[in-house]
Amino acid sequence: MILKISHIAIAVKDLNQPVNFYKNILKCDVTKPHKYPNHGIECCFVHFQNINIELMSPITPNSPISFFLKKNYYGGIHHICFTVENLLSVRDKLISKGIEVIGDGVPQIGSRDKKIIFLRPKFCQGTLIELESDK
Amino acid sequence: MILKISHIAIAVKDLNQPVNFYKNILKCDVTKPHKYPNHGIECCFVHFQNINIELMSPITPNSPISFFLKKNYYGGIHHICFTVENLLSVRDKLISKGIEVIGDGVPQIGSRDKKIIFLRPKFCQGTLIELESDK
Repeated sequence: MILKISHIAIAVKDLNQPVNFYKNILKCDVTKPHKYPNHGIECCFVHFQNINIELMSPITPNSPISFFLKKNYYGGIHHICFTVENLLSVRDKLISKGIEVIGDGVPQIGSRDKKIIFLRPKFCQGTLIELESDK
Repeated sequence: MILKISHIAIAVKDLNQPVNFYKNILKCDVTKPHKYPNHGIECCFVHFQNINIELMSPITPNSPISFFLKKNYYGGIHHICFTVENLLSVRDKLISKGIEVIGDGVPQIGSRDKKIIFLRPKFCQGTLIELESDK
């Protein structure tokens, strides 16, 4: 069902300080920032041997990340993303087990150009889980 | 400096519900719980292809995880752990760059029987980062 963990997403106020932390201090490979106006965020990815960290900062005041940062002044881990085979089948199986999907359950296109849905944290130990299609 | 991300740690009230979620619903491989009285926690690991999730629940009321759960009712992502070569050298380099280590900076033994230190979240985008020795 779950192929791997795709990435860990960290919400930050702006990308400058975290890019300095990961690129210049920790010597990681960091991609150039890219804006996603539909999601109200700007992102870059930190590549590790086995997984990526997604750094996300808000570009609109009503972005979900702006709301998260109001509650988490320094930023923080926002969600983890699982890569799954057959996203719609996994979604339907989870719903049948009582796990709620955020929104209407129709997959959107995420920052990695893959179809995604999010599970409601209260059904997943307080963790916001993104499910990303492998295709 | 950083070899990989070792694991993502999620704090939970008890292990029963999350083990059911990961083992029976998501069909992941989950290890048997193990108690670490020195840290006041009970843990198990969920194995993915590329990384592990550590599920941690408190076994004492004054465990740091008990404190975290008071602020996060449903649980939540507690920290991420980087595997590093030469832990003491990395610690000293980070301190020289103004990154604070929690406590006296002397490595402790973590739940995977490796030497560990933690970085103070306010210097790491609000993220609690554990550094774990590769040996």
